[in-house]
Amino acid sequence: MTDNRYCVIMAGGAGTRFWPKSRQSMPKQFLDILGTGKSFIRHTYERFAPLVAPENFVVVTNRRYKALVLEHLPELDEKQVLCEPVGRNTAPCIAYAAYTLLKENPEAEMIVTPSDHLILNEEEFRTVIGECLAFAATHNALMTVGIKPTRPDTGYGYIQVSDAQPVSKVKCFTEKPGLELAQTFLQCGEFYWNSGIFVWTAKNIVEAFERYLPEHHALFSGLMRALGTDAERNIVEMVFAECRAVSIDYGILEKADNVYVRCGEFGWSDVGTWGSIYQHSRKDRYANAAPEEGCYLSDTRSSIVSLPKGKIAVINGLKEYIVVDTDDVLLICPRAEEQNIKKFIDEVKYHNGDKHI
Amino acid sequence: MTDNRYCVIMAGGAGTRFWPKSRQSMPKQFLDILGTGKSFIRHTYERFAPLVAPENFVVVTNRRYKALVLEHLPELDEKQVLCEPVGRNTAPCIAYAAYTLLKENPEAEMIVTPSDHLILNEEEFRTVIGECLAFAATHNALMTVGIKPTRPDTGYGYIQVSDAQPVSKVKCFTEKPGLELAQTFLQCGEFYWNSGIFVWTAKNIVEAFERYLPEHHALFSGLMRALGTDAERNIVEMVFAECRAVSIDYGILEKADNVYVRCGEFGWSDVGTWGSIYQHSRKDRYANAAPEEGCYLSDTRSSIVSLPKGKIAVINGLKEYIVVDTDDVLLICPRAEEQNIKKFIDEVKYHNGDKHI
Repeated sequence: MTDNRYCVIMAGGAGTRFWPKSRQSMPKQFLDILGTGKSFIRHTYERFAPLVAPENFVVVTNRRYKALVLEHLPELDEKQVLCEPVGRNTAPCIAYAAYTLLKENPEAEMIVTPSDHLILNEEEFRTVIGECLAFAATHNALMTVGIKPTRPDTGYGYIQVSDAQPVSKVKCFTEKPGLELAQTFLQCGEFYWNSGIFVWTAKNIVEAFERYLPEHHALFSGLMRALGTDAERNIVEMVFAECRAVSIDYGILEKADNVYVRCGEFGWSDVGTWGSIYQHSRKDRYANAAPEEGCYLSDTRSSIVSLPKGKIAVINGLKEYIVVDTDDVLLICPRAEEQNIKKFIDEVKYHNGDKHI
Repeated sequence: MTDNRYCVIMAGGAGTRFWPKSRQSMPKQFLDILGTGKSFIRHTYERFAPLVAPENFVVVTNRRYKALVLEHLPELDEKQVLCEPVGRNTAPCIAYAAYTLLKENPEAEMIVTPSDHLILNEEEFRTVIGECLAFAATHNALMTVGIKPTRPDTGYGYIQVSDAQPVSKVKCFTEKPGLELAQTFLQCGEFYWNSGIFVWTAKNIVEAFERYLPEHHALFSGLMRALGTDAERNIVEMVFAECRAVSIDYGILEKADNVYVRCGEFGWSDVGTWGSIYQHSRKDRYANAAPEEGCYLSDTRSSIVSLPKGKIAVINGLKEYIVVDTDDVLLICPRAEEQNIKKFIDEVKYHNGDKHI
């Protein structure tokens, strides 16, 4: 561990895909959807804790989740939680952290990570991150972590490498390809999933902002001067109100010529759908995601059931369903229809307001 | 109204068929499963209130439901609730009421009714009961109310009449016939459903007990002497412990030669299954039992959904299902499988004890 090494956890998502289990007031990163005993954000923190000192973690989140972050990560001081007044995708989120760290420590090395992913082999994962840190410290490189794909997933972004070295220059990014293209990518062997985990120095990413997102650079440079002063909150408000929502991939990585990828295999998922939860769960002999205690299934298969603590369910005759029960909302939906959850939410919102959202 | 006219409401059932909506601690007669705004027992009371003075109602129930009865029927005095220590089917239940009324008023005329049936045309129903009362007051007759059948239901008992008079002597009782027999009954026109609603004088039914159920007569005659004394509770305990469980139909009506039936058509159901609830509910245009507020159904038809107050449900892709959600139990079951609910309860009981039963 060095004092220059920081971990930036992006935890601003208000994901609706796990509704009604996740809510606006309690998004996925604060939940233990897989039943591991810890929330995703807690797992994320503990995953990096062997590499980064507690005081060198920074969490960027929406203002409304600040208390939740501190509750899940009591090791952090309040000032380690950077609050966005409004979500503007990953580029502004990363900029806020990068300009803050650059002011604090011009030598800062940053790991940037989502707060709600699953990683099975954490030892191997930290080895990969260690190599990224070493590479980023000695090259003017924006590092991204690539994942060896195991299926032609059409929901992920793909990174094409230019050679077979462990650390390779990126040739091309492709966001969410069609199934045919995804199959070609899988067969070709040059394509990796984009994990959304990055490693770079604060100085290098700020230089990239200056070059590729000059408007953002202007806004966040202005903010930099106000950091730690009474004016900070107001200026953050203004900066986020004015800055364009853009992802770091689209805004910088797809344009910069110093982007490198370290490919790894350590059992990764962004756990973005009930389908992926189902995939990562143990199964009973009828291919149901290992039922929770109090779950009585008969003539039911390939289904996933989530219940509030202490509740029991008697479920008969469901094939390939998602059943999510919470104190105030019950969802029953075929697994193949889960992309409609967003529509269901809109309908509920239209009729019942935000109460159940 | 005459002071001799009494209404005996049988309310001891601990029906499990509506589990998890009904519970051991809150059986069907105290619920408003049809969403009418009143419990079944309250409807029963109000149905007879134009015919019987409040002080002439008697409710026979299990000891544990005494407080519930008084809560639903605040018009009653505590002494109008006769408590069985244990259920012994309808004959002992009716005997308890009959011997009690005979002691109180040797001229007592009794209407005996279940507490959990549905009757749509109450005006017509009261006309039928009025005729039964008139007949029973002037003949030594045990009257039963027959219902003109509308389908070959295999769950009901059937009564064959001996002539086409409004009040006819009963030729034969048949309990739960097979489908083929039920179809024959329906076509034949001589068969009526046995509603389980009876009218007779206390004197006549006690005479029938003496003749056809002499053991019960001995026990309840003994009890009669103790009624209203300090010994009553202990003797009731002893009587119910000793007396054989038997239905009034099997024990007396199928044997006696003075049983008459008054047939009626007034929209009757014993509401014994979710299927019958479904049948009696208004339907939406996809044949779902009119969904409760907060129920968002898509690609769902011919289903029935019951939710706790204030809860919402988003249900996609169910055909012909029963979904019953309560605070501590969720049931999802194809309508065609509802006869398995009893098995589900046994399984839950085996693993979780009585907590959710």
